[in-house]
Amino acid sequence: MNKVLKHFLLFLFLLGGYAFAKAQQDSIQIRKIYDEALKNGHSYQWLDYLSNQIGSRLSGSSGAEEAVQWTKEQLDSIGLDKVWLQPVMVPKWVRGTPEYAFIESGLGNTTQVPICALGGSVATPNGGIKAQVVEVQGIEELKQLGIEVVKDKIVFFNRPMQDELILTFQAYGGCVDQRYAGAMEAAKLGAAGVLVRSVTHSIDDYPHTGSMSYGDLPNSKRIPAAAISTKGAELLSTLLKLNKETKFFYSMSCKNYADVQSYNVIGEITGTQFSDKFMVVGGHLDSWDLGDGSHDDGAGVVQSMEVLRLMKAVGYRPKHSIRVVLFMNEENGLRGGNKYAAVARAKGEKHVFALESDSGGFTPRGFSFDSDDRNFNLVLQWKTLFEPYLIHSFTRGGSGADIGPLKGDGTVLAGLRPDSQRYFDYHHAANDTFDAVNKRELELGAATMTSLVYLMDNYIMKPAQIIEAPLKD
Amino acid sequence: MNKVLKHFLLFLFLLGGYAFAKAQQDSIQIRKIYDEALKNGHSYQWLDYLSNQIGSRLSGSSGAEEAVQWTKEQLDSIGLDKVWLQPVMVPKWVRGTPEYAFIESGLGNTTQVPICALGGSVATPNGGIKAQVVEVQGIEELKQLGIEVVKDKIVFFNRPMQDELILTFQAYGGCVDQRYAGAMEAAKLGAAGVLVRSVTHSIDDYPHTGSMSYGDLPNSKRIPAAAISTKGAELLSTLLKLNKETKFFYSMSCKNYADVQSYNVIGEITGTQFSDKFMVVGGHLDSWDLGDGSHDDGAGVVQSMEVLRLMKAVGYRPKHSIRVVLFMNEENGLRGGNKYAAVARAKGEKHVFALESDSGGFTPRGFSFDSDDRNFNLVLQWKTLFEPYLIHSFTRGGSGADIGPLKGDGTVLAGLRPDSQRYFDYHHAANDTFDAVNKRELELGAATMTSLVYLMDNYIMKPAQIIEAPLKD
Repeated sequence: MNKVLKHFLLFLFLLGGYAFAKAQQDSIQIRKIYDEALKNGHSYQWLDYLSNQIGSRLSGSSGAEEAVQWTKEQLDSIGLDKVWLQPVMVPKWVRGTPEYAFIESGLGNTTQVPICALGGSVATPNGGIKAQVVEVQGIEELKQLGIEVVKDKIVFFNRPMQDELILTFQAYGGCVDQRYAGAMEAAKLGAAGVLVRSVTHSIDDYPHTGSMSYGDLPNSKRIPAAAISTKGAELLSTLLKLNKETKFFYSMSCKNYADVQSYNVIGEITGTQFSDKFMVVGGHLDSWDLGDGSHDDGAGVVQSMEVLRLMKAVGYRPKHSIRVVLFMNEENGLRGGNKYAAVARAKGEKHVFALESDSGGFTPRGFSFDSDDRNFNLVLQWKTLFEPYLIHSFTRGGSGADIGPLKGDGTVLAGLRPDSQRYFDYHHAANDTFDAVNKRELELGAATMTSLVYLMDNYIMKPAQIIEAPLKD
Repeated sequence: MNKVLKHFLLFLFLLGGYAFAKAQQDSIQIRKIYDEALKNGHSYQWLDYLSNQIGSRLSGSSGAEEAVQWTKEQLDSIGLDKVWLQPVMVPKWVRGTPEYAFIESGLGNTTQVPICALGGSVATPNGGIKAQVVEVQGIEELKQLGIEVVKDKIVFFNRPMQDELILTFQAYGGCVDQRYAGAMEAAKLGAAGVLVRSVTHSIDDYPHTGSMSYGDLPNSKRIPAAAISTKGAELLSTLLKLNKETKFFYSMSCKNYADVQSYNVIGEITGTQFSDKFMVVGGHLDSWDLGDGSHDDGAGVVQSMEVLRLMKAVGYRPKHSIRVVLFMNEENGLRGGNKYAAVARAKGEKHVFALESDSGGFTPRGFSFDSDDRNFNLVLQWKTLFEPYLIHSFTRGGSGADIGPLKGDGTVLAGLRPDSQRYFDYHHAANDTFDAVNKRELELGAATMTSLVYLMDNYIMKPAQIIEAPLKD
């Protein structure tokens, strides 16, 4: 064996030994993180308070403001290097008195059905609206019917979620246009109002709210838009088949106000090595006004807080500055996410990584990444580190709405991907409450997020590295 | 290029094309199975009836007998080639009047706590037992204390599940010896009774029953054994620390009767090619008497029925004879599983594959196999076929209690492995009810099982093949 070869083999041996030692060390650190989360986790008790003592947190509500103060106090208590509030103006929409609706299917046969106003909708006139109903499966069908059929009617969008899609977020994506743009399109054809089938797989009595938009329609053209429970939708559809003259009555007193002052809540552990390079982990502090927003996104809020607490609890000092950001107003404006990114850019704060949890507090299955190839390939090398925790899904695609505005500048974005089968049963509805969240599932999510942040903190390839690093294949 | 090489390449091309076409065909068949299960599945409505109209099904109870008749009727209705009842004698144990217990912590301070008799326990004397309490963390500690400390006391086994274990069945395995053998060991040391912390992660008010054994202790030496809710256990432990004289009172009237007649319920689709080779898919029809046994094992029962219905619904005719077997008496005797295997052996029915679902109706994650190497390696090749359905975990280990007696004769055994985080919150307790089961999760499990049976039906390597097949590596 010649000398060069000998040295080369020695080098390989040392390199292999080093890589092995690193992987061992990472594996031990990750085990510590999961142990701490499952044995002494704070996320569940935090969520208990947020859901059961504060409750719903729609932007501009007293619940939202209480949540800002309380989460700041909690972050203050876990010994971070900095905690502050970042001011942001948010829209204020209120539901008003509870909605009321019934189906009138000829000869005084009325059946009350559960509805709720869509977020941002205008009210009905005082005393409500009663009109005949036109059922459609979507916006295309509506447009084909045209103004003669639609004028002065209540348009009823009844396209259900596709049960056969395994990823429920895909099924959600296939329906949500009715909710978001249905009222705008129906108004253009002279409709009196809009009723949308709740976007859920479950056939039950809960109406599911969510954001909608009138686009640039003038106020005078805006028509009231409500979600109807899936059981209500099935009943209405059946009655319409039996009697085309079936009418629908609904009354809503929701209202838009001027923007109000609110805040993103931010905490930071300053990095030991790259204090001017930031990693963000977050969820959104606001929720819809129905239920407690326990899955959407109370879970993401407490998991994100827990990421920083876990790092301190296991004695890990990050190289980069790690921030927890609790974003305000994801649901009906994204003002918090936009504000955070704008301030970061104005200050020249370089963000290398951002992770959001906003898909419910269920058993974590993996992450979705919005990343360059090199960092995504890096992540794939961590699969075996995550295997003992049954984390197996590393895909490319979206990350999270609130961290979206950080995109660009080479920031690697990621979203936690928990099991999604139950999520839309609770999403934006009155049953999104604390009892629907399982302690272990929530804690596993927090540990999984912390482990990813830990690995990114140690191995992420920043844009300069990516450009400088020689391509090996 | 010489002729031989040419022919070899052509051969490879055709082989590759064939394999590709087969994989395509399998992928299409599996997609059909999932579509049918998610769009027109029967498992959820079956479970609704089994849980809400029949309810709990302890061996020897009227619920168990009703479940036998009703599941047979359902199997009759889906057009199988044969449906029959297989007689089996089962133990009969009844709870009697509801249990009653309280802690007495000095000076008449009493607190009622939820308990339930362990399955198979003897009753307390009329009027109950009141005695001082000895808390231990397990059987080893009990033995070290010895007869002087234990005699005439109530032994309180309070070792909790280990929260840091990711696989909750491992944590269960680490605790269940207290429940199974605690009374036997304490009786040997002259204890008056036994109290066992419920084997669940959740801190709540549900006592969790389960099987226990006195071994060969004579009747006169048997002492009453109860499970106490985790909240009750925490309270008792705290009060014992404050006051060592704390006493516990409990009263139970449970009773063992002579064995009674019951049945396994069996349905079959006769194979087109290997009608004398059998594949079994099953769950157990009996449940504990608390709750409805919806997860344990109503879910496995309806999923197993659904496997055969799905095959018929998608027009798949199996090569092997496929049987659904709804086993009686898994919980406190395993008589059904033993009987089925004994009859199969007596008749010379060759069983090549058996699959059990008995780990709850949660989102399926994969399977555990008790198999020879060749068939397990075969399974690993199907990973990509399962990937679109987020089925990722193929491990070696246990399969299911009821199919265990089929082991040997080269039978490949498998168990469905759903997400296990919530399972022990409901296991053997009054909250194991229909509302704890999610429709999609249940249906995904049935489709996943059907897909595995389909693949096994087409590719399983039988013992002769395994021996004959040339080893390639």
